[in-house]
Amino acid sequence: MPSDENDRPAGVAASEGITLQELQLAARNHGMPLEGLRYDVTPIGLHYLLIHFDIPGADASAWTLSVEGRVRHPLALSMDALRARPAVTLTVTMECAGNGRARLYPRPLSQPWLSEAVGTAEWTGTPLGAVLEEAGLEDDAVELVFTGADHGTQGGEEQDYQRSLTIADATRDEVVLAYEVDGRPLPPQHGFPVRLLVPGWYGMTSVKWLRRIDAVAEPFEGYQMDAYRLRQAPDDPGVPVTRMQPRALMIPPGFPEFFERVRTVEAGPQVLEGRAWSGWGPVVRVEVSVDGGTTWEDAALGEPLGRYAWRGWSFAWDATPGEHELVVRATDETGSIQPTDQPWNHHGLANNMAQRVVVTAR
Amino acid sequence: MPSDENDRPAGVAASEGITLQELQLAARNHGMPLEGLRYDVTPIGLHYLLIHFDIPGADASAWTLSVEGRVRHPLALSMDALRARPAVTLTVTMECAGNGRARLYPRPLSQPWLSEAVGTAEWTGTPLGAVLEEAGLEDDAVELVFTGADHGTQGGEEQDYQRSLTIADATRDEVVLAYEVDGRPLPPQHGFPVRLLVPGWYGMTSVKWLRRIDAVAEPFEGYQMDAYRLRQAPDDPGVPVTRMQPRALMIPPGFPEFFERVRTVEAGPQVLEGRAWSGWGPVVRVEVSVDGGTTWEDAALGEPLGRYAWRGWSFAWDATPGEHELVVRATDETGSIQPTDQPWNHHGLANNMAQRVVVTAR
Repeated sequence: MPSDENDRPAGVAASEGITLQELQLAARNHGMPLEGLRYDVTPIGLHYLLIHFDIPGADASAWTLSVEGRVRHPLALSMDALRARPAVTLTVTMECAGNGRARLYPRPLSQPWLSEAVGTAEWTGTPLGAVLEEAGLEDDAVELVFTGADHGTQGGEEQDYQRSLTIADATRDEVVLAYEVDGRPLPPQHGFPVRLLVPGWYGMTSVKWLRRIDAVAEPFEGYQMDAYRLRQAPDDPGVPVTRMQPRALMIPPGFPEFFERVRTVEAGPQVLEGRAWSGWGPVVRVEVSVDGGTTWEDAALGEPLGRYAWRGWSFAWDATPGEHELVVRATDETGSIQPTDQPWNHHGLANNMAQRVVVTAR
Repeated sequence: MPSDENDRPAGVAASEGITLQELQLAARNHGMPLEGLRYDVTPIGLHYLLIHFDIPGADASAWTLSVEGRVRHPLALSMDALRARPAVTLTVTMECAGNGRARLYPRPLSQPWLSEAVGTAEWTGTPLGAVLEEAGLEDDAVELVFTGADHGTQGGEEQDYQRSLTIADATRDEVVLAYEVDGRPLPPQHGFPVRLLVPGWYGMTSVKWLRRIDAVAEPFEGYQMDAYRLRQAPDDPGVPVTRMQPRALMIPPGFPEFFERVRTVEAGPQVLEGRAWSGWGPVVRVEVSVDGGTTWEDAALGEPLGRYAWRGWSFAWDATPGEHELVVRATDETGSIQPTDQPWNHHGLANNMAQRVVVTAR
């Protein structure tokens, strides 16, 4: 279902000003203020949030997660049944696939993220693979379709939020049905009472308010599969967006001006700090430029918080008086490096242009 | 310090499009998605948040709240000392003074709120009045100045965030130094480790990351006192913004379209629900119009959650097929009623125009 002129989320802004529709989304959803990079684990109200439709009301005591379709033993799991299964806790960095969209020109019309659509949390749940094993996938099953309780219209199509994974991706050890975050039941906005969690992938994959898993014999072609593809034009078939591209972010140094958010630092020695991650493999290098990207130096890397979480970085900077443009970029073990100019795509997805922070040292 | 053309937060937008500067604020701060009206107490990550500068880092074990200035016995209170004092828990609805700003035309340039800058929480802390009594205010003290740890520049003035209250307002029973919300230590974004809480007033009064209270002999004229005044022009002296104007909000019925957020409901009988509050006294009436404000009917009021919290309302509606503009407005016990057209003011403060929700019944 290629997008068209009336398909507003796939539309492109006619002017530089953010529209009322984009503002409505920005007022509901929120990014992590970048000083939140200070915390290993993001305090829950600071973790980014993107909700396509409305947060559904949910009664955990009545909730059932069903596993059906091409399975030999359909399951209907209560929350008690899920909690009785083996539990794992994973520290996971999650980013919205649309992060950075509002820096594209022309600007794809959807949630207008700048750089803040990220967060790291400790999720507890039960591995999906063992649940699927218990259900017994039929030989002709090729994908699992995950259905959330959030319901609405997008691209002219009324839908429950749905995304699929291949069986190989769904049965990876780290894929879990998560019912706690940071040691407490999920808050409503993060998928209470249970969500899918797919570490390493952009957040659209980790279906919230999960109520059904269908094993299917054909690849799923629902709206949200079509919407998350890298394409140059609405009629381009494109390629699916999956894992997070490498990205480093810095804690903006010094202090801000309220409205413009321009920064002031004290001249002299200081330490720039931040976090870096990639869904394709460990970040192996973070580089900092203090001259707008002309020259680069390596930052020191901290220990990763886990296989699926960001790692800290730090960089000693002797700030001379005047204005400086700080830039930071990450490289992951596959050799993928963040661009300093942003390639454009029609939906504004998987943008990982290097962050730039302008500061004046005094 | 009257605002001028270079004073951007007090500036007015030149066009309808939201600027990059406003978007930067909207991506950091966030409102409560209105389906959050479903909860008596707002889950903490959904409570609105407005932070002028950066969230400061804070070490609770080293934190000291000092009480100084025109007092006989200056105090330096550790968090342990604050927690050892008598504790009270209050359920409080808090709203940003700029709520509704982005619906003004022309639009004052600051955080571009639509209707969502509100939340209700259970705050625990110790009454401020007893602390001030212990410090012993000098006879010439007229106000208390509250200083937060958040630092930045606004209106060309470098500052720690500071607001004052008269002694009469500061010593009201319900004014507390709050260190817990919903039974847990404050999260960083809500003022960890301690904040002022002034129930009934707009949120700018409840200074977060509170580190100093100064008793002063002259009314405080800092930037944040000047910024929160109702004025028609930058050079108008204006009047201070204090308590929350009455407001009712409804849970948007039915389901949304992702981008436009237009709503669809099933035709037939249904119940509209929401919450209403006022800082001037209990809400005594909520009215609903299902014809865009032409005719009004009374909603049923629920019990208030407390003296300083919103109360629920509900309204039975038989939706006929077609498009409807639902409107809701509250009246408080002082007789103050929400307007259906928004009076304009230069900073876009204390806007409490009745909410309008367009729905199509099918």
